[in-house]
This record gives sequence, structure tokens and C-alpha cells, in this order.
Amino acid sequence: MQGLMQDWSMTLDKILDHARANYPDVEIVTRSIEGPIHRTNYGRVWERAKQVSHALADKRVVQGDRIATLAWNTWRHLEVWFGVSNMGAVLHTINPRLFPEQIAWIANHAGDKVLFLDLTFLPLVEKLAPNLHTIETYVILTDREHMPQTSLKNAIAYEDFIAGRPTDYRWGDFDENTAAGLCYTSGTTGDPKGVLYSHRSNMIHAMCVNQKDCFAVGVEDVVLPIVPMFHANAWAIAFIGPMAGAKLVMPGAKLDGPSVCDLIETEGVTMTAAVPTVWMMALQYLRETGKRPGKLRRVAIGGAAIPETVLRAFEEDYGVEVVHAWGMTEMSPVGTLGALQAKHANAPIDERMRLKLKQGRALFSVEMKIVDDAGKELPHDGKTFGRLLVRGPSVAKAYFRNEGARRPDGTVLEADGFFDTGDVATLDPDGYMQITDRAKDVIKSGGEWISSIDIENFAMGAPGVACAAVIGVKHPKWDERPILIVEPRAGADAPSREAMLAHLEGKIAKWWMPDDVVFVAKIPIGATGKINKLELRKMFQDYVLPSAQAAE
Amino acid sequence: MQGLMQDWSMTLDKILDHARANYPDVEIVTRSIEGPIHRTNYGRVWERAKQVSHALADKRVVQGDRIATLAWNTWRHLEVWFGVSNMGAVLHTINPRLFPEQIAWIANHAGDKVLFLDLTFLPLVEKLAPNLHTIETYVILTDREHMPQTSLKNAIAYEDFIAGRPTDYRWGDFDENTAAGLCYTSGTTGDPKGVLYSHRSNMIHAMCVNQKDCFAVGVEDVVLPIVPMFHANAWAIAFIGPMAGAKLVMPGAKLDGPSVCDLIETEGVTMTAAVPTVWMMALQYLRETGKRPGKLRRVAIGGAAIPETVLRAFEEDYGVEVVHAWGMTEMSPVGTLGALQAKHANAPIDERMRLKLKQGRALFSVEMKIVDDAGKELPHDGKTFGRLLVRGPSVAKAYFRNEGARRPDGTVLEADGFFDTGDVATLDPDGYMQITDRAKDVIKSGGEWISSIDIENFAMGAPGVACAAVIGVKHPKWDERPILIVEPRAGADAPSREAMLAHLEGKIAKWWMPDDVVFVAKIPIGATGKINKLELRKMFQDYVLPSAQAAE
Repeated sequence: MQGLMQDWSMTLDKILDHARANYPDVEIVTRSIEGPIHRTNYGRVWERAKQVSHALADKRVVQGDRIATLAWNTWRHLEVWFGVSNMGAVLHTINPRLFPEQIAWIANHAGDKVLFLDLTFLPLVEKLAPNLHTIETYVILTDREHMPQTSLKNAIAYEDFIAGRPTDYRWGDFDENTAAGLCYTSGTTGDPKGVLYSHRSNMIHAMCVNQKDCFAVGVEDVVLPIVPMFHANAWAIAFIGPMAGAKLVMPGAKLDGPSVCDLIETEGVTMTAAVPTVWMMALQYLRETGKRPGKLRRVAIGGAAIPETVLRAFEEDYGVEVVHAWGMTEMSPVGTLGALQAKHANAPIDERMRLKLKQGRALFSVEMKIVDDAGKELPHDGKTFGRLLVRGPSVAKAYFRNEGARRPDGTVLEADGFFDTGDVATLDPDGYMQITDRAKDVIKSGGEWISSIDIENFAMGAPGVACAAVIGVKHPKWDERPILIVEPRAGADAPSREAMLAHLEGKIAKWWMPDDVVFVAKIPIGATGKINKLELRKMFQDYVLPSAQAAE
Repeated sequence: MQGLMQDWSMTLDKILDHARANYPDVEIVTRSIEGPIHRTNYGRVWERAKQVSHALADKRVVQGDRIATLAWNTWRHLEVWFGVSNMGAVLHTINPRLFPEQIAWIANHAGDKVLFLDLTFLPLVEKLAPNLHTIETYVILTDREHMPQTSLKNAIAYEDFIAGRPTDYRWGDFDENTAAGLCYTSGTTGDPKGVLYSHRSNMIHAMCVNQKDCFAVGVEDVVLPIVPMFHANAWAIAFIGPMAGAKLVMPGAKLDGPSVCDLIETEGVTMTAAVPTVWMMALQYLRETGKRPGKLRRVAIGGAAIPETVLRAFEEDYGVEVVHAWGMTEMSPVGTLGALQAKHANAPIDERMRLKLKQGRALFSVEMKIVDDAGKELPHDGKTFGRLLVRGPSVAKAYFRNEGARRPDGTVLEADGFFDTGDVATLDPDGYMQITDRAKDVIKSGGEWISSIDIENFAMGAPGVACAAVIGVKHPKWDERPILIVEPRAGADAPSREAMLAHLEGKIAKWWMPDDVVFVAKIPIGATGKINKLELRKMFQDYVLPSAQAAE
């Protein structure tokens, strides 16, 4: 028996319509790329987003066409965002921090028809243009006055592109599973893969992310999304802002400590979100100047594990609540949040911090489980670690153009519909998840798993160590055994093999003890600042363990 | 182009699964019908709800079957709630405050197969049983020890009904538009009509109601739903609790001031919801005893317009934030919420109170408009009033068994898919809605509308008036004209016709002035405490206006 409730398609136009009907004069403030602070409001953004749709329709853009942006967080990006998706086209937000050749590869793979770009990226795009095979129109996100000379063909200033267009474009009116956005993962191996969000997945995700224990944004809030709109929906903030009627403060291209802290103070920011590195800069600035973070009451931190110093600085020094979130592009992106439960209220501060440093509990609508190599579910005891699988309405089931497909229907899912995050994690009885390793870095020894990260963390603490890495190498009996690779600190006494092993003794299980310790001049670091284990594994592919020789 | 996100059906079993995975030991505390305080948690409620599903399946209950409850807010009601819906059956919550013959009519109309009832309602149901034609099993929500003698055939104690059942019932796995719940409106005219909620409508509604500006319940909250679970989903709290991991405090049958305030204090309640009359009792108790409402930080008030004294007592005397909500059974039920915007933060307190007394802004996912008799949309100027129409994923499109259908497809909607609330309201430029009248009470004079309630409110303030009502009577020229009906206060000097009109002069538009004033000994009051205008219109159906005689 079907219910008798209205058929109301969860399309994203409903979000901006809601903002216009209820908060037309709530502000969107931007540190513009041209320089000055710019002010507009939801009523005008709604009108101009309609004009964007009209202008695109004029360029024969139809439902399903991919429209790209290479842009910072600004009001114009927000207008394009809704103008594209609300007409049924697909907003492809390109990460400008990728290598230029990757950007060209992505734009061609997506088949982008129009590219909206900030002035910042004009030199880059001019260089790439000969290799961009599908883009017919370049819209520079500026006005005629600031429009530079350009070698780009079919380039037009944004303000000219939309000027004088009608504001009556009919948005929505299509299935909620229609594609709304496209975002490529910057996969560490292989080509980037496109995650194709739907209107439904984005709306459900925004509703869930804005629950009280996660972002909790309301009409009295002032929200500064430092996380870029080209990073997986700016963690949903571009949707949550108009949904909740919050004032948005857009930082444009300036994400340094002074610029960010200045906006927080002058615009009365109450909530903000960014990766840890931004906060390290901002906190340093606050410490050096003795300033305080104004009315800020809550920061969301994700994208990388949060350093304890950052957590404590916000919560203890400034009284700002930290929401530790974890996720991935394939999860729209938020998967977990770190809010503590009532029973933890009276726990000692160190215990609270320990819990907050975990990746957190599942956001409502996200199901999580850990499994072993055979796919068998493992206990939620906070100790056993296994492959972390996730399921939910805002989790990807496949990649654009079936890249990486594992099944005939093009999906990349496990047989039971779960998505493999590629992480290895523990889950405790209260659902708190902690990532212990990347699945490909786990060492599989005699059918059991050894966490490379756990050993590394202890090894890093040994005297004279600049950097330490653990990888698995082939072993005839145990399949794999760990070796510890050490980069000695310059100027310090180089630690010995025996000293390293003695340092680990008692800290890790006996059978986790590395079978060998190898010293190198430099451990390779990847573009994201993490140890490049792929490179390390290549370096040691012909390495034969002393213990392996013994076993043969 | 379709997005590539997972197909995840929004079925309500996901809510309880989420609670079990993340907050298994968060409590549900109940003032039990048997007397003592009872404590359980989400982990155990999950298990026992599975047992309910098994027990019902044993009674050959299948998807689509209607299963009724006549019950207060208790942990057992919560178990039945999820046990029924999660297996695809339809939970029919019957309002025990209806007339007994209405209860029987409703149960027969719904075709209920099983009835779960509290001990409180056993005498009532025993009397009704001969007229209950579809119920095969009666489950008394108690244990064997408290099971009374009963004349009901096939009656069983709840604890015996579920005892020893397995906990592995497979929930969900069906379309999210599947019917989940059935609730009849206690329509003032005609037979009650059934609103058939779907899994989807209930889940979206719960996500929206729990946004920061509405209920804002998180894992550290302790929530006391005084609003009964038989009133339109307890305003979504039975879903929000397990979704957010909040501790639930269930008041059972005792909703008086001392009982409610005792629970608030002893259980550390932070958020609660009820109709205004409950608060009037509770506030009186607090005032008389000098007690304070413990840790309470937020109350949701709805179901009837909120008296200013209640609003001010909470906000000014006790520092408790009031969320004024408006809705109706057909809206799941919440339609609007009263949160103020940032720009009102510095408004004088009286202006803030005036805004908070309005019915509020649209909940996200609710679209509202006001239209004239021809269906033309009216301006949002805060003055013009028109029929209030609503649209959204949690708004009814039809009633059970096509009752009241206006269209061949069985729906009751307007041509553009909006639902007519039957209210007349204004909307201001910020979306704040204010109900000015019931549509059927509005007086239509010369093509314009006159609000009966506005005139009544002024007339009530005249000396010597106990009660005042305004209705429209037929007029040959103007179609309808208002007359003022006055019940003089006992013991006071009865006011004169002239004095009444003089009192209104200057307060209302000239053409709103009643054409006559009539005095009656008693103005009829309906079961809900409101003026019975239907009865009044009957009393005055043959009344001829002096002005009508003049016009003829």
C-alpha cells in the first residue's frame, strides 16, 4: 500500500526558492577576486541564478550537459552553482590545485560544454585551451570593467553573459535522481574518477549534515565556508546556507590566516569549516596578534585527521566547539561527525579529547561496517580493525562513464550494496569510528592484519628519527611481513637497528615487530604531504627479508 | 542524465537501526501506566520492536495491513510504532479523546486487524468491541502480572505477545513511498478523514523538523514529548529521538502540571513539546511552587495559537526558548516555525514577541502561498489575507479510501498541486505567516473578505462582554455582511448595540463594521473550546439584516 503524500521532487531549486521566499534580504558577503568586499542577498542571487540558466539555454545547454567551474567561493560561483543544477544541467566543479594536465584530462573526460572561471585562473586556462576539446564558451567571472585581454576564443565577461536576461526560467520539474553535480577524486593511483551527485543525494546530505550534532546552522548564523566549493560541495554549505537562511561569508581566493580571521571578526562569523592546515595558519595568526575569533562558536574540521593542538586551541583557549568530520568525495562528502554523547559529558577532558580525535559517529543516513578480507562483518569493539564499508543515499555507487566498474551494471559496490572506502578502521560500541590505515597499506601477515600507521606513530617518537614508514614485503611463509624504513634526523646521531626495535618493544604486539629496519636518506612524500607508500613499495620491490631467506 | 548515487530507500527502519548502531545505551524513560518509572534503551527497543514484527507476522499480518494503537507515550508504544511500520504494515494511531462512536467508526473505516491498547482504555474498548468489525486480536500493553480480566476475545498481554520471539526480522526492503502510518483528522464537519503517511514523508519531515531553528535535538538532549504519539506522529519526535540519539522521557498518561514538571526536573529534560493548555497548567504549578524548569532550554508549542502570557513566562521568567510551530495532521504535522531572523536580534522585546506570536516561517520543504477566491496569488505584504495553500513532500495529496476526493485520481489538491489548509492567512516579506481566520468563517462582502476573528478580538475587549462572535449573514447586494453576536457577562451591565459599535469604531475598516449587533444568553462552544460557528450559523440562518431589508 502506497502512502498518500504529495509527489515533491527533491530538486535543488527548492532550496533557493525557499531562501527567496523566507530570507530574501539575508546577505552573501564576498571578498571578491577583484579586491573589494561585495554584498548581495538571497533574493538577488535567486534572480541572477535564473539569468544564468537563461544565458546557458541560449547557448543550447540542455539537461545533462556538463558545465564546468574553476572558481573560488564567491557569490558569482553560487549563482552559477544553482543556475546550472536547477535547469537540469550538471555542475562540474574542477579543483584548480590539480596538475594542469589533469585539469585538461578531466574537462575532456567530463565533456564540459561551458567553463566559468575566475580571473585567477585565466593564464592557466589560456595555456590549456588548445587541449580542451569540448568547451565552446568561456565565461570569465567578472564584469566588463575588469575583463582582461585574452587569447581564449568565445570568452565573455560573466556580467555581460547574464545582463538583461529574464528571471522567469522554469527550474526543476524533473526526477530527483537527475544528476546535479560532478566532482573528480584526485585518486593517488590511476586517472581521476568522477562522482556524479544527484539532486536527491545532495538534498538529503545537506539535511543530514545540518542536524544539531553536525553543522547546526540556523537563520541567525553567519557561515564562512573556507572549504572550497570545488571540494565536494563545500561540505554541503552552499546548500545549507540558503536552506537555513544563514548569512554566507565567501572568502574568495584569500585563505591565509589574517584574511580569514579578519572576515571572522568583521562579519560576525559564528560557524566555519575548513581543513586542518587552514586552522593551523589561522591559530598561529591569532596567537601572534593576541586577537580572538569574534563570535565564532563552532568550527567544522575535516579532510585530514585533526591535530590535537588544533582541537585543544579551539576548545580550551577560545571556547569554540570543534566538529571533527570525516568523509570523502564519494560520500558527498560527510560520513561521520565527532559529537560526544551525554554520557561523556562528565568524562575527564583527556578522555573527551581522545574521543574527539577519532573520526566520529555515522551521520544519520550513513551506514558503516568493518569487514575482513572475506567480507565477514567484524565486531564493534573499538579494537578489531577491518575494511571500512559504507552505504547511504549520498554515497556513490559508480563513477562517471563507468570508470573502475566492478560489476556488469557499472557499479563499484560490494555484493551487498556497500561501498569500500579503501580505509581500514575500528568501530566502538557507540559507533565511533577510527581509521587505522589505508587498506592498501595494511600488512597482511599469516591471515592477520598489521596496521602500518600504528607502528609508524611509535617509530616517529624514537630519538634521531626524522620520518618513519612501515610497508609490507613479500614473505614465503607469512605472505607479508613489515619492514621499518627510517629517515634519520639531520645532525642527530643516527639510531641503530637494535635501538629502533627496542623502542617499539612492549608498545606493539610481538608479531607486529618489523622483520627488518632499513635506513634511507629521504622518505618520499606525495603531493598531499603524506608518505608516498606507492613509491616506497617500488623502491623495495626486490628487497628480500633476512627472515625470508631463513624460511626458504 | 541520472546521478550515480546509491539507491537507499528512506524507510523508517533505518532510523532505529541507526540508533542501535550509534546510541544503543541511550535511555527511554517512561512513567508507566502501571505506575513505576520504567527504563530501557534504544538497543533493547530495537530488539523488542523486531519481536513485535515477528509476533504480528505470526498473526498473518502482511504489508499494507492496518494495525491500530490506543495508547499513551510509552516505550511499548514506541516498540509497536517501529515494529509495525518497519515490516511494511500501517501504524494507525487512534486518538482516544474522540467520541467512542467515532473511535469505532475510524477503526472500521481503517479496517484495523490488530489493536494494541493501554490498560487505561480497556473499559472503553470492551464497550466498543461488538461494533469493531475487523479487529482479530487485542494486545494489552502490559505484562501478565498486570493483565486484568477482560471480556475481549483474543486478548493477550503485550509481554506474552512478544516473549521469546526472534530478533532477526528483516525490516525495510520496500519502496519508500510505502504507507507507514494512518492518522484521522478530527474534522469539525463530516466524518473523520484518514491521512496516510509514507516512510518517505515521515523521514523527510523528521529531518526538516530537527533543523536548528525548529526542534534542534542532538545526542546530548533529553526530550519529553508531551504531545501524544496519537497526534500526528508526536510532531515527529518519535522519529527524531532515535535519529539524533536523544534520551526520550515518556510521560505515559499523566500530563498534569506536577507530573510534567517532576519529569522535567528529575530526568534533566532539555527540550519538550506540547499544546498551550499543558503549558498553562505547568506554568501555574511552577508559579505556585516557586520551582524552576530544571535544565529545560527549549519548548515547542503548537496545536493552537500560543497565548502571549505563556510565551513571555517561558522566555522572560525562565529563560527557556519557545519555538512556536503551526501545522496540521495533513502536514505530518509541522508547517511553520517561529524562529526570528538575525535582523530581529536587536528589535525591541515587544516587536520580537509580536513576531513570535505569528504562526511563523515555512519549515524547509514546505511551500506556502495565499490566494484569492479565483486562485490568484496574493502579495506577501503582511496585510493582504487569502486562502493559505501548502505544498511539500510531507503534505497530504488525498485521504484514505479517497474520502473528500476532488479529482478523478482521488486527490484533494488544487490544479497546481497545492493543498488548501482551510485557513485564511497573511504572509509578510520575510515569509512569516499569520492565520487570520478559518476560510469558512471569513465574511465575503462585495467580493472582499472580512476577517471574523479580527472583529471578535476587538469586541471581546468591550466592557460587559463575556464572549463575542462574528458571522456572515446573507445580503442581497453585498452577498454577505457581518453581524456581531454578544454574550453579556453575568452580573455586569449589558452593553448596548450602540456602545458595541462605538467600541469598534476606528479599530477596524468602516466597511468591516457589523451591520447589526445581537445579544444572546450563551454563545455555543465546541468540543475543542472554540466558538462553534457552525451552530451559530444555524441559529441565524433565517436572520434578516436591517440593511438587507433596506436594500430590497
